[in-house]
This record gives sequence, structure tokens and C-alpha cells, in this order.
Amino acid sequence: MVSGDNDSNCRLVRMKTQISAPHDGSYDNEALSCSTIDISAHTTGEPHGGLRGSNEFILSDSGKKVANDDQTGQLNLWLQRKAKSAFSEKMIKKRLPILRWLPQYNSTDAIGDLVAGITVGLTVIPQALAYAGIAGVPAAYGLYGSFLGCIVYIVFGSCKDVPMGPTAIASLLTFQTAGGNVGKAILLCFLSGVVELMMGILGLGFLVDFVSGPVSSGFTSAVSLIIVTSQVKDVLGITAKGTTFIEIWRNIFNDIHNVQVWDTFLGLTCIAVLLIMRIIAGLKVGPADDELKSKNHRIINKMMWLIGTSRNAILVVVCGAIGYTFQSSAVAPFKLIGDIPPGLPSFKPPPFSLTANETLSGHEESFTEMVSSLGSGLIVVPLIALMENIAICKAFSNGKPVDATQELIAIGLANIANSFVQGFPGTGSLSRSAVNNASGVRTPMSNIYTMALVVLSLLFFTPYFSYIPKASLAAVIIAAVVFMVEVKVVKPMWRTKKSDLIPGLGTFIACLALPLEMGILFGVGLNVVFILYHAARPKISVERLTSPGGAEYLIITPDRCLIFPSVDYVRNLVTKQSIRQSLPVVIDCSHVYGADFTAATVIDSITQDFARRDQPLFFYNLKPSVCAIFEGLSPADFVVYYREEHLDDLLKQRAYKPKEVISA
Amino acid sequence: MVSGDNDSNCRLVRMKTQISAPHDGSYDNEALSCSTIDISAHTTGEPHGGLRGSNEFILSDSGKKVANDDQTGQLNLWLQRKAKSAFSEKMIKKRLPILRWLPQYNSTDAIGDLVAGITVGLTVIPQALAYAGIAGVPAAYGLYGSFLGCIVYIVFGSCKDVPMGPTAIASLLTFQTAGGNVGKAILLCFLSGVVELMMGILGLGFLVDFVSGPVSSGFTSAVSLIIVTSQVKDVLGITAKGTTFIEIWRNIFNDIHNVQVWDTFLGLTCIAVLLIMRIIAGLKVGPADDELKSKNHRIINKMMWLIGTSRNAILVVVCGAIGYTFQSSAVAPFKLIGDIPPGLPSFKPPPFSLTANETLSGHEESFTEMVSSLGSGLIVVPLIALMENIAICKAFSNGKPVDATQELIAIGLANIANSFVQGFPGTGSLSRSAVNNASGVRTPMSNIYTMALVVLSLLFFTPYFSYIPKASLAAVIIAAVVFMVEVKVVKPMWRTKKSDLIPGLGTFIACLALPLEMGILFGVGLNVVFILYHAARPKISVERLTSPGGAEYLIITPDRCLIFPSVDYVRNLVTKQSIRQSLPVVIDCSHVYGADFTAATVIDSITQDFARRDQPLFFYNLKPSVCAIFEGLSPADFVVYYREEHLDDLLKQRAYKPKEVISA
Repeated sequence: MVSGDNDSNCRLVRMKTQISAPHDGSYDNEALSCSTIDISAHTTGEPHGGLRGSNEFILSDSGKKVANDDQTGQLNLWLQRKAKSAFSEKMIKKRLPILRWLPQYNSTDAIGDLVAGITVGLTVIPQALAYAGIAGVPAAYGLYGSFLGCIVYIVFGSCKDVPMGPTAIASLLTFQTAGGNVGKAILLCFLSGVVELMMGILGLGFLVDFVSGPVSSGFTSAVSLIIVTSQVKDVLGITAKGTTFIEIWRNIFNDIHNVQVWDTFLGLTCIAVLLIMRIIAGLKVGPADDELKSKNHRIINKMMWLIGTSRNAILVVVCGAIGYTFQSSAVAPFKLIGDIPPGLPSFKPPPFSLTANETLSGHEESFTEMVSSLGSGLIVVPLIALMENIAICKAFSNGKPVDATQELIAIGLANIANSFVQGFPGTGSLSRSAVNNASGVRTPMSNIYTMALVVLSLLFFTPYFSYIPKASLAAVIIAAVVFMVEVKVVKPMWRTKKSDLIPGLGTFIACLALPLEMGILFGVGLNVVFILYHAARPKISVERLTSPGGAEYLIITPDRCLIFPSVDYVRNLVTKQSIRQSLPVVIDCSHVYGADFTAATVIDSITQDFARRDQPLFFYNLKPSVCAIFEGLSPADFVVYYREEHLDDLLKQRAYKPKEVISA
Repeated sequence: MVSGDNDSNCRLVRMKTQISAPHDGSYDNEALSCSTIDISAHTTGEPHGGLRGSNEFILSDSGKKVANDDQTGQLNLWLQRKAKSAFSEKMIKKRLPILRWLPQYNSTDAIGDLVAGITVGLTVIPQALAYAGIAGVPAAYGLYGSFLGCIVYIVFGSCKDVPMGPTAIASLLTFQTAGGNVGKAILLCFLSGVVELMMGILGLGFLVDFVSGPVSSGFTSAVSLIIVTSQVKDVLGITAKGTTFIEIWRNIFNDIHNVQVWDTFLGLTCIAVLLIMRIIAGLKVGPADDELKSKNHRIINKMMWLIGTSRNAILVVVCGAIGYTFQSSAVAPFKLIGDIPPGLPSFKPPPFSLTANETLSGHEESFTEMVSSLGSGLIVVPLIALMENIAICKAFSNGKPVDATQELIAIGLANIANSFVQGFPGTGSLSRSAVNNASGVRTPMSNIYTMALVVLSLLFFTPYFSYIPKASLAAVIIAAVVFMVEVKVVKPMWRTKKSDLIPGLGTFIACLALPLEMGILFGVGLNVVFILYHAARPKISVERLTSPGGAEYLIITPDRCLIFPSVDYVRNLVTKQSIRQSLPVVIDCSHVYGADFTAATVIDSITQDFARRDQPLFFYNLKPSVCAIFEGLSPADFVVYYREEHLDDLLKQRAYKPKEVISA
């Protein structure tokens, strides 16, 4: 409503009113006790102070309006401000989180980080070897992706608990995207890093918000089932190939007659041992109350925890010894992971093209061919990596806000770095972060000890790694990921919102039946359909009330904003109800916090319909910002009031008589 | 909250309160004057009576719960009920709208329909010939698609103003989808009809709700520009081919040296004449007040309107006569539309495969090949047809609700019928419906006179049609569609909601640059992104208030429902604000009308965070249905209150002392 609009038909009846409660959901803000009808315009200014978040409905730029008279000057000013803020101390500390904690680094921090770093290191080495198997690349590449990114994360990472490196989910996605081709896996690592970095710079971290809890649970559960499936063949000692769940199981059954007794025996034993050790890690001896425990109790508890936590490393060492013992025997009873080249990988750029030897097809592949074969993986791998990483940050943040932008930059740069030492895509690992946190990590510096262990093992221990039986690595993976199947989430989901089981279950099934990236996109799409349906079908209550003055009227209350998918539905309902009951109609807009052009046109039609029927129509408690949108079309007979008692005056003004009386 | 939950940590503090206003946005409903703390469970039952529309947030099925003990019996019962309602008299009348008006059909209706039907018939014949040109098929096929569907619409159509037949938009989409192949255009007509019918049966009519006003305006404007562009070549007498806007204009400029003077002269003259006659149709002689007009005035006005409205038919007849006159001259100065086979088309199924002669490539095409070449057109053509049709219904419904499902069934069956007489896809035409309405149409029966005219013209007049110059038909199209460019919509859009110009302009540009179906999908997608952004970023107000008892507290008010894309944003904001200001925090949930599982997990985390910080957190005015969702996870320290005065009691209970005092 523009000032000076009084000559138009548009009337805004605004009453000053006493505040009955500071937060009663209405939009009055004047503390005067009595009401006057005020037909002039004062819709500007939001009475509800301090609104934050998205402006108005979507894109208005209040508070940042640039005057038209001096745009170039303003632009320069804006650029200067932008540049200044980009290089302010606060911004630099935000983008280089190391500057926040390194100056205060003390000996307590150092000890905490040392213990945590070494514990994580003992976990990451067997995991890296095993996850390389999931990614379909030789075991050494798992270790290659576990050290350089750690250092990058120390500088750029904002979350102390993140141990950067290969993870089960990222490895499986790498396998499904790169198809086990080492060159493509390394290029994928580089390009994922670039995409993550770009997403961070463009502030696209909010995209993970669209992966809801149920979709994430469904995805994780499906991934762990697929990973278990992919490892079953190593436990059984057979060679069943395939990428999707069904395909692998079919191949396992086809190859079932080749099952190797010794591999199977070792694998199952290892799984049992790992599960038992996992329980040991959580056991406590002595009295329940911590303060009553004797020193011995505490030492035993600590030892049990340490042994339990290092179970992967212990198991792999023991099995490696067994493998070494049997290697001289004529018929090796176990399949071993085989030779691992000693020493650090050479530092060189990722492969931007493949020679004929390096491809499955035997043809050369150019950069564009490689990229197009990676396809949607270039989007899905970064997004899932971010999702995993954010999940860790949130789990251990104690409620502190998580900076998704900074994490994107950190894992992006870490992956780019890893691709120069032939790593495949990695991110923060949830299982290792739990170890990290439980070991008392204090800062991201713990990563440096992890890195040191990996480098040492590459330099000195690779000859021994080659004796590790494949079945024992498969057991390490199975015993880890089987707990990622989130069956326990079904019950609370059922208790809170049963309909959320649909996207959860849908994602789970889609991820098992389709390639993973299609599965998660399906789940997110399904969830988005829910949001859209929600936007399209607001809940509308219709009540027949009597005004203080004794006039009957119909009050229609939509419960959310009026935007294009819903307005026709609202119009149909308002029309139906108001034709059925020939009463004055009040549309209570207390909950209408936004509207758009389509809504304005429909409100215009509704007011015309009512005027044609000579049926009074009033809008109650319409937010000024929404009112301004509706008035943009200057609807013919648009009356808003803000104080309930005033309805009778409005009806009197309209000289309203019920239809029945007129027709009689 | 389940009854008997009192032993859990979950506390629900509910106060009975006096209603201060019948619709004040809070959820109290008991008219008792004083408050008691009630820690038992009574969250079931919605206090706000008569809620309609989508249940709760998304998919709960309240009121339709099927007992588990006797599911098969219940299912039978449900099927019986469903079958009964499907064959009830009301349902039959709903699905066969002819039964509603035919029994009351009287002579007034008959006269109104006769006049309107013949006027529309005079419009549809030249339009059908012209639109066939847009669709890239011989002119006769336009007439073939203009008669059988009309009868079907009489039986099934729910809107009196819809003249079923070819339209400019549907013709252009047909051209872009079928590429001017007659067989494919007819199959597209059949399959579009099937898709429309299926969408009607499945109740998918709501999909058009997702085409917002701005997107629809952008699309229509782009379509009319493309159609004008496609006709320019006929006006100029050249042969510039192409499908997209840019392509056609490039070809026109390439071929500009071949411009035919006579065609150009005729075309431009026709356009000028049509525009003048259009103005004449709207002119009125005599006094402005209708009652003061003399009989002569009225007759003159009526005549001017009739001549103006029949301008297309008059022009085409005159130009046909000119074409006939010149046909004997040695060098025909005009390009004519050429031979039209006389008689009605044969009644036969649409072609389900093409022989080598019928395709451009010269290869046979099977049904699947034809379908895959039609591609996304199979979805877009039905949707746009529905959109056009619904737009007509709404324009002339006088605010009565439009039954999208019935319209889908009607146009679906009409298109299926048309495909058996070699028609191409059609729908209700906006330009002819305006003529129909202005001519005083009373029921869909007017379609029968239109049909009769088309059939007569096919039987007797086709030999004369062949003399119509192409340029005059192009002029008919240009003079009609040029008014579809919705420039006038920009200003109100700017005045109501500037950000709505983005999807409008985006769709416009995308439709010009890309194939039409991609363009509109782009526009809808852009608009959906707005909704998603809106769902992801609620507006949150933060205020520092003082309770009646004098305690300072922070009140945080999100303005809409808490669902997965927004909850992390809300959590971050709540955490940031509450850490910054170490005060008790109240989350005012008056506007939170829905939530999901992801929101429940986040609320659980927030309550844990606050408990860890020993900072009191209360939820105010939480809707019982949402409360039940949050309590599904049994959050540790979850306190809801419904009456503001009670905050002080709650703070006393918690023995809250500000942090500063404790640390001092």
C-alpha cells in the first residue's frame, strides 16, 4: 500500500491495541488502550523486531538496498567492504582454524593428542588396507590416502575429532564410480576435492541439509549391507564380482562350490574375536561409581579399553604372523593381500588421461572420457563425504554450531593433496572419530601422530603387510560396518512420525537395488516431494463464530504461508465454504507469514468473487509485509483489520444483511 | 507422549486458561479462569476443531485408521465403501457432468449455445487450418482434430466455456515433439489422451498447481513469440525451418533475399486489418450507459461485435476469394495452403508403427521407437494441455471451484477420440473460450454446433479452402498470439513480489533458448528451488524479554514448521544465541504447525545441550500434535508450557540462578 492510496478502493483498517502478551502470535505492537479506525497507510516497517534468517518469503533484500543514483560508487564501496571483511582477522581465523588453537597449545593438549593420534593410527592402518579392497584398488593405495590429507586437515579443519582418511562409504562410492580403475580413483579424489572446495567457496554446504535423518539412516544401512556383502567373498575365499547388492549375492551363490575351508574358518574366527574384543572395550570391572574404583580397577579398565580399541591392529598383526608362518608351506592355506611396494608414494599430479594399459577396455582414455565415465559420482562423492564429515562434527560438537563451509574447504584441500600422493577419496571417518574422541583428543593436531604412524608403516612395515590374509581384513571390515545398519532408528521413527519411515525405507531399498548414487538421489527426491506436498496442501480450519456484537461469521484459518502450489486449493476451499454458508467471511492470516505473486492474484480473484456475491470478506491480522504483497495488485475490496472487536463496526459499515433476508 | 509416561524425565506442563480471543493463534481451548500444573498426559485430540486439508504435516491418516485385529474384513469393508461411493448417484453426476445440466436444458440454453457454437465454429475453422501449420502437418489435420473431441467434451466436460480443439500452444508442442511427422502427431494425440486419463484417475491434477503465475506467464509469452516467429516465414513467403526461437530467426535472415513481395504485402495487410477489426469488436456507439442506448445503437454495437469477432473467418473467406481469382494467372503471386482432401477422415486407430515411407529417416519405426522419440513430450503435452484448460475454467468460473480431475478425464477422452480421426493433440482454447463466453454460451452443448460447422466444412468446403493464401493464415495466427505476450504482468509482479520476476523471466528465456518442454521444466524447477530454500531457512526472531516475575529470558520464535532442511539451521541459531546471552531460553512454537523425525532428533540434541550447560530451556505454546512428535524420542529435559504467567513458576522449580552469579 503506497501512501496517498486513499482514493483507491483499498482500505486498510488498522487499530492500535493493547499488548496482552509479549509473544501472542499477533502483529500488534502499539501499547495504546483504545482503538481508532485509521484509513491511511502505514504498512512499512516490521513490528516484530529482530527477524533473522531468510528475508521475508524468499529473496527480498531488505537492509541491503543500493541507491540507484550512485550505483558504481556503491558497488566500489561494497567491493571494498567485501574485500576488507575477507581479509579481516576474524575471517582469517575462521578460514585457518589452526590460528585459533595453536597459540594456546599446551602440554595437556599435546599428551591428549599424542595418545589419541596413536590409537587412531593403530586403527587406520588395518582399515586403510581393508578399505582399499572395498574401493577395488591394491591395498597400498589405502595407506597412500591416509597421511597427507591429515596435515592439511590440521591447518584447515574446524573439528578436533575428525580423522581424515579413507572411509567405508567413500570407498564403496569410489568403487561404484571408478569401477576399480586406480587412475580413475585418483582422478576422482582430485576432482572431488575440487568440487568440495568450490562448494565451500560458493557456500553450498547447506545442500546436506536436504539429506534428512531417515534418508541418511536408510543410506548408511544399505551401504553397510553392501559392504558386508562385498566382503563375504573374501571370507569364503571365492571371487564373486559385482557392484550392486543383488548382483554380488547372485555371484556368491554361483561360486559357492569353490568355498575355501581355511579362509572361511579364519574369517569367521576373526569376526568372532573382533566382536568379543569390542565387548571387552566397553566392559568395566569394579564398583559402578567411578570414585569408588581402586587404582587396580582403573588400570584394568584402561587396559581392557586399550586392547579392545586396538583390536583391529592386534588381529591383523596376529593374522599376519599366521600368514607368514604358513607362507613356506607348499600349499598356502590362506589368500594373502599380496605384495605392497615399500616406501612412500611419489609426489606427482593425478593422471589426467589413461594409456591403453591402464584401462579395462584396452583403449586410451582422454580427460573428458574419464570425467564422463565418473559421471554423477563427481557430485555424489563430495556430497556424501561432506555428509559423513558433518555427521561427525555434529556428533561431538556438544551443540556448538558446525561450520559446513569450512569443513568443505578442509576436506576439499585434503582430497586434492591426497590425489597428489595417489590416494583415493576420503573424508572424516565416523568409526575412527569415535576412537579419537574416546582417547581424549584435544585438537586436530592428533592427525599428525596418525600420519606419522602411517608414514612409518609405509617406510618400514610394508614387507610384513603382504602376509596379511584377505579373510582377516574382510573380518575387520565386517565387524566394523555391521553396526552401521541402523535398525535401532526404526522404533523412534515409528514413535515420532510414522510417515518418515517411507523416505527411510525407500532410500534403503533404492540403494540396495540401484547404484548407490541413484539410490540416495531417489531418497532425497522422495523427501523433497514431501516438502512440496506440504507446501501445496496447507491445513485450513473453518469455524462458525459469533462476533461480540452478535453477528455470525465464518472464520477460515490457513496454517502457513500462501504460495503458488497451495493458493488454488485455498481458493477452492474458501469458495466452497463461503457459498455453502452464506455468512460474512473472515480469513485469519495470523499464520500467513509469506506470500507471492500467484497468491496475490488469487486473493484479488477471491475479493472479486465475494464482491460479486455481495458477501462481506475481511482479512484478520494480516502481517504488513504480506499485506503489501496483496495490495500490489490493488484488489478491489480488500479490508484488513487487526482487532477482533472491530469486526462489528466493519459489518455495520458494509450495512451487511444476511442473504436470506434480502431474498425474502 | 504416551499415557503412563510420568516416570520418564519428560514433563508436560499444561495449563488450562481463559480464552481471550476465539482466534488468537494460541492453542488453548479450555475456558477455565485459573491455572494448575498438570503433569499427566493429554496430548491427544486437536484443540483446534475442524481442521481440513492435508493431515498434520504430511501423511498421517487420522480418521481412517484401520484396526489391526481384522484387517482383511476392514479391507473388504473399505473396498465396498469405495465401490459404493464410485457408483453413487453423486459420483456418477460428478463424472458425467452432462447429467447435471441436460435434464434442465431449456430453450434459452439452446439459443445461447447455438449462437455461441456457431461463432466459435467460424473462429475454429481458420484457426484449425492455421494451427496445423504450427504443428507442421497438412492443414486438413487441424480440422480433423476439431470435431469428435467436441462431442466427448459435451458428455464429460465440467466447464461450459471450453471449446475443445487445436490450440496454438499445443500445436507448437506437437511440432517440437513429433517434428512434423503426421503419424507421430496422431500417436502423440492418443498417448497424451491416455496420460491425461490416467492422471485424472490417479488424481494427479494437482501437478498444475506447481506451475506458478510467473512461470505460466513466462511460458505463454515465450510460446507466443516463438509462434509469431514461426509464422514470419509464411508472411515473407520464404522457407526458413527450425524449432527454437534463435534457430528460426537465423534461418529467416539467411533466407531474407528470397522474400516474396506479394506474400509480404498480403500478410502485412491482413495483420493490419485483423488488428483494426479487433478494435472494432470492442467499440461501442451511443451513450455510455447501457439503458440510455437506442435500439439502433444496440443493433450497431451487436453488428460491430459480430463482425469483429468473426474477423478470422471473414478475412480467410476474402483472401480465399483473392487466391481463387489469381489461381488462373500464369504466375501465382501467393503461396496457397494447397489441396485439402474432401470428406471426413476415416475412423481408424492411431498408427502404432510407421513404414519406411512415413518417416524422415526412411527406416521403419516400431511402437517403442516412436514412443522413445516422443520422449518427455508425453508428459509435457498433457500437463500443458491441462494447464491451458484449467486456466480457461478458472477464468470463467466466477469463483466456483474447478474440478481438475474431471477436466483431465474429459480432455483425455477427447484426445483419445480425436486420435481415431487423425487429429493432433488439442485442449480448451483460451482465445475461442473468450469468444464462446462473450457470445453467451450456457452449457457445453455449444460444442455440438461448432462440431457441425467443422463437419459441414469438411464435407462441402474443402475444395475452396485450398485457395487460402498461406500468408493470410499466418496473419490470423500472428494477430491472435501477439496478445499472449504478457508484458502487462511485469508491473504488478514488480509491485507485489519482485523476486517472482526471477522464475518468470527465467522461464521466458529458457523457453526461447531451449526446447519448450525443457524450458517449462526449468521454470518449474527454479520455482521449486524457491520453495525448498523457503523450507530450509525459516525466519527466526530473537528477543530479550522480562517475565511478569521480573526474570530476564530470551525468546526465540521460528515462524514455520520444523522439518529436515531447516532444523540444523535452527539449532545453530538457537545455540549461538543462547551461548552468547546466558539467560533462560524460551522457544515460542506458536507458529510451528508441523515437524518430522529429523526435527525430533535435533530437539533432543538441543535439550541435551542445554541440560549440559545447565541453562533452562522451555517450549511455549507447542501444538499437541507437534509435541507428540518431539516426545517420541523421550527427550531428557523437555518442558512445555502454555500460559505465559507460568514461566516464573518453571524458573523457580528449576531454582535457576543466572550463570554470572554462580561463577562469581
